[in-house]
Amino acid sequence: MSKYKFVLDDSRIPKAWYNIAPDMPVAAEPVLNPQTLEPVTPDFLSVLFPMNIIKQEISQERYIEIPEPVREIYKLWRPTPMFRAHRLEKFLDTPAHIYYKHEGVSPVGSHKPNTAVAQAFYNKEAGTKALTTETGAGQWGSALSMSAGFFDLAVEVYMVKVSYNQKPYRRMVIQNYGGEVYASPTNRTEYGRSVLAQFPDSPGTLGIAISEAVEVAAKSGGTKKYSLGSVLNHVMTHQSVIGLEALEQMEMADEYPDIVIACAGGGSNFAGLAFPFLRENFTNGMNTRIIAVEPASCPTMTRGKYAFDYGDTAAMAPVVKMHTLGHTFVPPGIHAGGLRYHGMSASVSALVENGDVEAVAVKQLATFEAAVQFARVEGIIPAPESAHAIRAAMDQALICKETGEEKVIVFNLSGHGHFDMAAYDAYHAGKLQDYVHPTEKIEEAMSHLPKIG
Amino acid sequence: MSKYKFVLDDSRIPKAWYNIAPDMPVAAEPVLNPQTLEPVTPDFLSVLFPMNIIKQEISQERYIEIPEPVREIYKLWRPTPMFRAHRLEKFLDTPAHIYYKHEGVSPVGSHKPNTAVAQAFYNKEAGTKALTTETGAGQWGSALSMSAGFFDLAVEVYMVKVSYNQKPYRRMVIQNYGGEVYASPTNRTEYGRSVLAQFPDSPGTLGIAISEAVEVAAKSGGTKKYSLGSVLNHVMTHQSVIGLEALEQMEMADEYPDIVIACAGGGSNFAGLAFPFLRENFTNGMNTRIIAVEPASCPTMTRGKYAFDYGDTAAMAPVVKMHTLGHTFVPPGIHAGGLRYHGMSASVSALVENGDVEAVAVKQLATFEAAVQFARVEGIIPAPESAHAIRAAMDQALICKETGEEKVIVFNLSGHGHFDMAAYDAYHAGKLQDYVHPTEKIEEAMSHLPKIG
Repeated sequence: MSKYKFVLDDSRIPKAWYNIAPDMPVAAEPVLNPQTLEPVTPDFLSVLFPMNIIKQEISQERYIEIPEPVREIYKLWRPTPMFRAHRLEKFLDTPAHIYYKHEGVSPVGSHKPNTAVAQAFYNKEAGTKALTTETGAGQWGSALSMSAGFFDLAVEVYMVKVSYNQKPYRRMVIQNYGGEVYASPTNRTEYGRSVLAQFPDSPGTLGIAISEAVEVAAKSGGTKKYSLGSVLNHVMTHQSVIGLEALEQMEMADEYPDIVIACAGGGSNFAGLAFPFLRENFTNGMNTRIIAVEPASCPTMTRGKYAFDYGDTAAMAPVVKMHTLGHTFVPPGIHAGGLRYHGMSASVSALVENGDVEAVAVKQLATFEAAVQFARVEGIIPAPESAHAIRAAMDQALICKETGEEKVIVFNLSGHGHFDMAAYDAYHAGKLQDYVHPTEKIEEAMSHLPKIG
Repeated sequence: MSKYKFVLDDSRIPKAWYNIAPDMPVAAEPVLNPQTLEPVTPDFLSVLFPMNIIKQEISQERYIEIPEPVREIYKLWRPTPMFRAHRLEKFLDTPAHIYYKHEGVSPVGSHKPNTAVAQAFYNKEAGTKALTTETGAGQWGSALSMSAGFFDLAVEVYMVKVSYNQKPYRRMVIQNYGGEVYASPTNRTEYGRSVLAQFPDSPGTLGIAISEAVEVAAKSGGTKKYSLGSVLNHVMTHQSVIGLEALEQMEMADEYPDIVIACAGGGSNFAGLAFPFLRENFTNGMNTRIIAVEPASCPTMTRGKYAFDYGDTAAMAPVVKMHTLGHTFVPPGIHAGGLRYHGMSASVSALVENGDVEAVAVKQLATFEAAVQFARVEGIIPAPESAHAIRAAMDQALICKETGEEKVIVFNLSGHGHFDMAAYDAYHAGKLQDYVHPTEKIEEAMSHLPKIG
C-alpha cells in the first residue's frame, strides 16, 4: 500500500449520489420564476429540463442511485486518484499533511463530466434529441459534447465570443467530439440578435450565452433541452462522487481531514468534494472546516449579498437566493474563467450564510505563484480555477508551519491546465495583475437586484 | 473486478526494467563514432552522457533495478490503466477484443517521463548540473523539464523553431516547469550560427536541434550532459515499464494478446509496450504478432534501408545501424511531429530486419479519421502519433470482423492530444492531406548515407 497515492477499484465507484438537501441545517430558498417572481413550477422548468432531472433538482432523498450506464462511463476515469502531496509538504516545510483529489484525469481534463454524463443519460432516457448549453472558457462545453456523443445526442454550445476567439483549443475539443459551437452573441436567437443590433462588436458574456441556450431550448417544442454545468442542485448531487470517493480514500490513508478546500465559481467542484464531508459534520459528529475559495476579482461570497437574483444577465433565467454581485456585475478578464460567475449555487450560498462553510478570496498573482510552485514539485499543471484551492491549501499549511500543528488538509484539484498555458505564459511575462473592486462598483451592481416581497 | 479497466496498485510498479539486449535473436550493431566511423568508446560517449547511463546503454543484463526515487515519482501516474475498448469494439462491430494502455495520464500527457525521470535521476547522481536536449513538437522537452526540476537540475531545450512558433503551448509547458527553451537554430552554438549564416530564415529541423544540444553539452567541460528521449537502448529499457505492467494487466483480464501494436518514431513507446511481449515470444514460447506503425509520409521501416547512418543532419551524432531514410531526408510537416525522425532505434530496426517485428505504414487522413472515431466512442482524444497505433488496431479489428476471429489486440495510447487540437481542427476543415514520396526522393536521400567498411 502506497503512502502517497490512494486508488480505488472500479467496484468502489459510488452506487448512489449524495444529495445534501435533506441534511441542510437551513434549507435553500425555492427558485423563482423570472417573470412572476413566484416559486417556479415543474411545468415552468419542464420547458428547459426533462422531468427525471427536475425530480432530482427538487428531491429530498438523501441518496439517488447512479444508473449503471453512467457508472459504466465513469469507469473511463473514475475512481480518480487521491494523492498525498509529499513533495509540496517538503517544499513548504510544513507539518501539515496535504492531500489532493485529482479530477483532472478525466478525458476532458476536469470534474465536469461527472454531471455531463449523467445529464446526457437522463435526457436520452426522456427522449430529448439535442442539448443546448453555454460555455465560458469551454470546460463545460467540452464535457457535455463528449457526454452527449456517448448517448447519441446532438449538442449546441453557445460559447462566449471572446473565449471562442481567445481559447480556440477548447472550441476545437467541443467540435472534435461532434458538438456544434457558436460564438455568442449569435444571430441564431432573438436575444442574440437584439444584443448584436445594439452592440455589433459585443465580446459576449456568460449571461448572454445562457440566455441564448435557454431560448433555443424553450422554443424547440420539446426536442431540445437545456443543460447547465453548475449552480443547480442536481449538478451538485452528481458531483458528490468526488467526495464520496475521497471519504473512502482518507480511510485508506488512515487519516481524516481537519480542513477541506475547493474553489467555487458556480459551486459544483466545491460541492462535489465538500458535501459528503459536510454530511459527516452534520450527521456523524465530525468537525471539519470546509473552505470555499473564490477570486478576489469576483468576490461573490466574501463581498456579495445573500439575496434573490437572476441567474443570467438578461433576466430570463430563474431567480435564485444566493450570494451574488448582481446579475449586471462584469468581472475583469481573469484567467480563471470558470470563477467569473456573478452568483453561486443556492445550496452553497445557504451553507455559507449559515456558517457551515467558510469563504475566502485569493488574489490572482498569489494564485498563479501557488500554481507554478505546485507544478514544479508535484508535476501536475493545475487549471487556474483549481489553483485557487491550491493557494488556500498552501496558506493553511503555512499557518500549520507557524503553529506546529499537524493538520490534515484535503483539496480538490478540479482540473489540469493544459488548455490554459497562455495564462501561465502571461503570468511569467509579468502581464497579470490583481484586481480589487472599489466598493462603489459592487454597490452599483447590487442596485439592480430584483425587488422581492 | 471490472471487465473494462485493469488497474494495478502502486506496489506493482515494476521493480526492474527489462533490457531486451541479451534476448535479441540477432544483436543490434555497435554504434560508431561519427568522425572515425569506428565503434564508439565509453570515453567518447562520456562527453555526452554520465557513466551510469552509458553502462545501461551497453548493458547485457536482462533486468536493471529501478532506483527507489524513480519509482517514487512514477507513482504520480503509474501504474497506468489498461482499458478494454468496448465501445470501440461495438462501433466497429468486431469480434476482436481491443485493449489499450493509456500512457496519456502522466502529468505531461505522454509516455516520455518514464525515461525522463530516470535520466534526470542518474544525471543528478553523477553530479551533472544541467541537461541539454532537443525537442520537436515539445513532448520530450516538457517531460525532461518536469523531471529535471524534480532533481534540481537546470535544463536547456533546443526546440525546432517552426514548432516553437507554431506550438506555443508546449514551449510554455517547458518554461512553466522551469526549463529554458531556445528556438533552434540559435546563435548560442557554433553549429547554430553556421546554419543561420547560410539560412537566416531556417525553420529548424530536429537534426539541427540535436546538433546544438550535443554541442552545448560537449563544450561544457562536463557540467552539462545531453539527454535523448528516444532511439537509444537505455531509453527503450526505461520505457519497458509500459509492457511489464501490460503483461500483468492482461493476466487480470484473463487474456493474452494475439497482436501488440504501437506507433514508432524513434521507437521508444513502441519498445516500451512491445519488448516485454517479445520477451515472452523469445523465452516463453508465445507467438504474439508485434506491429510497429509509422506514417506513410516518413516510412523509415517500410521504405528505408537497414544501414549505418548519422543520428542527426549535421553528421555530428553517433552513427547507428538502423532503418533510415537518410539523415538528409526532410519529411513533410505532418501533424504527428514525434514520428518525423529519419531513423529508428537500432534495436527496433534489428528486430524488424529479423522478422520479429512487422512494420506497417498508415496515411495521415485515415489516421485522423481513426483518432476522431476513437475520441467519440472512448472519450479520450489521442495524440496524432498515438492515432497511428489506433488506425492499425482498428484495421486489425476490421479484419477480424471479416474472418470472424476473436483476436485479442493490445495497443499503446502513448499520449493525449490536448496540445494537438490545431491538427484536429485542420483535419475537420479538410486542410490535411496524404503524402506518398516518389521513389526518386527516397533514393536521393539514401545516396548520402556514410560509406562504411
